[in-house]
Amino acid sequence: MAKRIPVKYEEKFSYDIVIENSYENLPKELEGFSIHNKKLCIVTETNVKDFYVDEMMSLLQPCAKEVIVFTFQAGESHKNLDTIQSLYQVLIEHKFERTDMLLALGGGVTGDLTGYAAATYLRGIDFVQLPTSLLAQVDSSIGGKTGVDFQSYKNMIGAFYQPKLVYMNLHTLDTLPKREYFSGMGEIIKHGLIKEKAYYKWLQTHLSQIKEREFSVLEEMIERSCQIKREVVERDPKEKGERALLNFGHTLGHAIEKLMNFSLLHGECVALGIVASSYISYKRNYISIEELKEIEQIVTDLSLPVRLQRTESLTEDIIIETSKNDKKMEHEVIKFILVKECGNAYIDKTVTKEEMKDALSYILTSCS
Amino acid sequence: MAKRIPVKYEEKFSYDIVIENSYENLPKELEGFSIHNKKLCIVTETNVKDFYVDEMMSLLQPCAKEVIVFTFQAGESHKNLDTIQSLYQVLIEHKFERTDMLLALGGGVTGDLTGYAAATYLRGIDFVQLPTSLLAQVDSSIGGKTGVDFQSYKNMIGAFYQPKLVYMNLHTLDTLPKREYFSGMGEIIKHGLIKEKAYYKWLQTHLSQIKEREFSVLEEMIERSCQIKREVVERDPKEKGERALLNFGHTLGHAIEKLMNFSLLHGECVALGIVASSYISYKRNYISIEELKEIEQIVTDLSLPVRLQRTESLTEDIIIETSKNDKKMEHEVIKFILVKECGNAYIDKTVTKEEMKDALSYILTSCS
Repeated sequence: MAKRIPVKYEEKFSYDIVIENSYENLPKELEGFSIHNKKLCIVTETNVKDFYVDEMMSLLQPCAKEVIVFTFQAGESHKNLDTIQSLYQVLIEHKFERTDMLLALGGGVTGDLTGYAAATYLRGIDFVQLPTSLLAQVDSSIGGKTGVDFQSYKNMIGAFYQPKLVYMNLHTLDTLPKREYFSGMGEIIKHGLIKEKAYYKWLQTHLSQIKEREFSVLEEMIERSCQIKREVVERDPKEKGERALLNFGHTLGHAIEKLMNFSLLHGECVALGIVASSYISYKRNYISIEELKEIEQIVTDLSLPVRLQRTESLTEDIIIETSKNDKKMEHEVIKFILVKECGNAYIDKTVTKEEMKDALSYILTSCS
Repeated sequence: MAKRIPVKYEEKFSYDIVIENSYENLPKELEGFSIHNKKLCIVTETNVKDFYVDEMMSLLQPCAKEVIVFTFQAGESHKNLDTIQSLYQVLIEHKFERTDMLLALGGGVTGDLTGYAAATYLRGIDFVQLPTSLLAQVDSSIGGKTGVDFQSYKNMIGAFYQPKLVYMNLHTLDTLPKREYFSGMGEIIKHGLIKEKAYYKWLQTHLSQIKEREFSVLEEMIERSCQIKREVVERDPKEKGERALLNFGHTLGHAIEKLMNFSLLHGECVALGIVASSYISYKRNYISIEELKEIEQIVTDLSLPVRLQRTESLTEDIIIETSKNDKKMEHEVIKFILVKECGNAYIDKTVTKEEMKDALSYILTSCS
């Protein structure tokens, strides 16, 4: 069943995305990088370790010069420079050289963190993405964005640095907690809304299979999402233009994520951001009220939030102020992503504070 | 008098090295980057600030949207992630965006540190090198190596990240402390020895003018060294091969630098490394005893050390062990740079521990 999606960087082959239903073929995939001659460090998080590290060790130890494991406490709050420095420390202790390799085994946090360590240790060593969460498989493992949060600002510190391979075993989704799974659906809905109406429609008609994690449907969904992500990052690897479309729902979503102290998952915040952004699209007459309601419906159907409780520290003004410290600013103007129609998004630099406030009022609810 | 040396990266124009005798033309050079629309952060060190920051502010404030200054405590011991994090903090407070710019005003430490912050803040913003020390002008500001030390290991954390411009005002050398000035000569002797016999000979015949910092001689020397550095980094920007030649004297030099807790300057340690490496070249019959002595002579003439006191914590074995944690390792073999003849170096992977020990015994002296 293996699917292979080659990704280019500046017109040249850069790496493969390999979609598999086991880890069986991973050693063969890694052979091409002469791992018999390399030390490998598997970077993983506490909630993933118990499921896959033993299998990974027995697969890789016979093929590599040495395999070590670095485990960090799961959760976005550990995606910071402290964790990175602990990892550097371990790499130095084990005398990792420029020719050695890191493997990111886990969700989006693991991939972002490992990629950043790989980009900066000895001015750059190779790394491989082994995404185990839906979010990482369809979104964060592809395209070379690496980074960590800094003082709770999302991904403030980072680098564009491409992996050597993205290899995913879809059966890791079997053990993914329900909330994590649906969090990944936030990015998938985004892919449909910004790029492909047919895919968005397909999602609507496959809701029950998606919720049931029916394998063949997951396979198709993940492949389609990987293709969308690949096409965008190939055309614009460093987010000079089109790639910013992938930030649909993220401008306000990131601010909410920070203000909620990461108690909401990334995809949950993106879902709220999608609803708010779609509301602006509706107010501008790009989409109809029915389409806005449809978007809220699919978000709700996939166990993602469409409304959030307003609190003293989470008001329209505070969210807008926080979003201004995000990377999406250009000359003090927020690059906002809006949908012109479902399946077609664009970058808008004219969204006013009032429009944002209006949209946030739509998603924030007060205590009754 | 301005000299302009364009530097290519992967066959395409990347940035200019501009050699000037004042800062007068800097605003004009920066105009091309639309700085009227940008915030600038001048990153500088305590011992440079008082000399040039006022002038820089009065030159740049009229042309840029906003100019701020970040000053850190001078010295290699501050080239670390703590300083980097203080800088991130200031950039966030002033809401620096991806389109803004950093300026590195200072010596090698300032350039390495600023370049690394630029490479990683918001996944990369533009930066300009304004090297004020001889070492930075002829060596570290060119070629896009950025980084910081980690637990006293030199440049363990870093990135290859190219500046937008290297602009040097040679009159900054007038105020450079004597020891700093001669430290830069370590890299210049290196350039001659690894790449150009005629230049090495020229240095030998211009010693008194160099020591007197005679302006026209400095001009020629800096231009020639910049050309050598440019040619090497253009051919091998990421140190896959030839660029490693620039590490002549650095393998053992870095280890000494670390073990002496940075009480010796970088160029002083490089000088010791040059003598040790030249000794191996002599023992292998690549160069004659006269040539070895000549090398020691020019090093001594330029106020750089050729011998070092052996102590309990600075022995042959300890230096060798420390050098193994350096970046110059490949599959547990040290990539050592030797001179085949004066003006012609190569990468040697066969240097034994005994050869290194022998060479270190040559430069280490015992209490009498």
